[in-house]
Amino acid sequence: MKIARFSTGGDPRFGIVDGDEIVVLEGDPMFSGFDTTEERVPIASVRLLAPVIPRSKVIAVEGNYPANPDEDTDAAPLLFLKPNTSVVGPGDPILLPSDAGTIVHEGELVVVIGRIAKNVSADDATDFVFGYTVGNDVTAIDLMGEAGQQSRAKGYDTFAPIGPIIETEFDASNATITTRVEGENRLSGSTGDMKNTVAELVAFASGIWTLLPGDIIMTGSPAGSGDIAPGQFVEVGISGIGTLGNTTRPRA
Amino acid sequence: MKIARFSTGGDPRFGIVDGDEIVVLEGDPMFSGFDTTEERVPIASVRLLAPVIPRSKVIAVEGNYPANPDEDTDAAPLLFLKPNTSVVGPGDPILLPSDAGTIVHEGELVVVIGRIAKNVSADDATDFVFGYTVGNDVTAIDLMGEAGQQSRAKGYDTFAPIGPIIETEFDASNATITTRVEGENRLSGSTGDMKNTVAELVAFASGIWTLLPGDIIMTGSPAGSGDIAPGQFVEVGISGIGTLGNTTRPRA
Repeated sequence: MKIARFSTGGDPRFGIVDGDEIVVLEGDPMFSGFDTTEERVPIASVRLLAPVIPRSKVIAVEGNYPANPDEDTDAAPLLFLKPNTSVVGPGDPILLPSDAGTIVHEGELVVVIGRIAKNVSADDATDFVFGYTVGNDVTAIDLMGEAGQQSRAKGYDTFAPIGPIIETEFDASNATITTRVEGENRLSGSTGDMKNTVAELVAFASGIWTLLPGDIIMTGSPAGSGDIAPGQFVEVGISGIGTLGNTTRPRA
Repeated sequence: MKIARFSTGGDPRFGIVDGDEIVVLEGDPMFSGFDTTEERVPIASVRLLAPVIPRSKVIAVEGNYPANPDEDTDAAPLLFLKPNTSVVGPGDPILLPSDAGTIVHEGELVVVIGRIAKNVSADDATDFVFGYTVGNDVTAIDLMGEAGQQSRAKGYDTFAPIGPIIETEFDASNATITTRVEGENRLSGSTGDMKNTVAELVAFASGIWTLLPGDIIMTGSPAGSGDIAPGQFVEVGISGIGTLGNTTRPRA
């Protein structure tokens, strides 16, 4: 089931994507279930929004894909936090600060937590997942040189585009992630190459922080990252979910 | 004015401390002003809660006090994020994970943001401050050795006790911060020794992230940190605000 968060001018609403239409839901399905209203709206007539705005945590992972097949895969995942003020939706601009050096895209599978998760095991972890979306872990890569600067380098406003929808029935074991800039393929990889699987990441994160409904985990970028400059259209697509597209602009 | 967030058994309420009593406010003064109700309750009869639960960011600062007076003070502040799930209030337990090595307290002045702040100047920065409280930036210090682990080492549930109240009229230029463990003085310092002042920190942070009402900045610990073990009563006091006390317990 593909869940959209959208606006037709007023407050955000939620719906289930059905072909070219959205079947409008009574409320946020994460909290109030999947009861539908009588209303259907054409997708083309709505503005799709970030499918979730985390109330607590945007977790990102460093180095979750091997740089080469011989690399050690035993290290614990390196997790860090982006603020929820960095989250934007499909079609929203990515604003590039002029004083932050080179900015890169990272195309990533994003896990959306649906239930409070605390110290869960990897075996149980996917029970706590609401669904999956696509994300771009935008990074001011020159700032990453100084230890501990991830929350700054990856935390600027608009540096966490997510969308276009949440897929609740998704097989994360072997999906293709493709990143395009101005229509040109930049990177491509498979979620099957993750060092730490979705279940392992959820379990590990829940052992540090209590995960709340709406928290998201950006699971890392296969095949690295690529430079972006103002005025470019950046797309991240994941087979089975959809494609997230954003245009870069200079930050005022 | 000292603002308390408290419970008498039901939902959290807000009030102004007046001697031994709290004058109950109509709502959260950050959003709905300081209109009071007719009700007064004795402080001794209520449970004081964390005076704010950030909807977005708990910002902490590394190395904001000189280790010695000759140290270079020109470096940009190193900011990182703790999740809002780490915030607890006065009297709440600090839960110490058994597998995270040595845990230390850091007694800190905490700035509470009251208005949306984006790219504000240091001259204007304090206009965006709602008030000040006391915080303990609890840290699993052995985990800090690996680059970029601050959000984990400092982000465990209960690792950001704040309180007991928010003082809206506070002079941050020269207040004394004292940390006691089991009644014994551990550390003492002055907010006057900050490398980056409150105004500079707010300005710098607002240039990275849009700060939202309720976001907090933990401004760093003078005179370092000290070990804590399960079963200890840890107090952080700041002259002009009050004293935050929490007991440590093993995390289950």
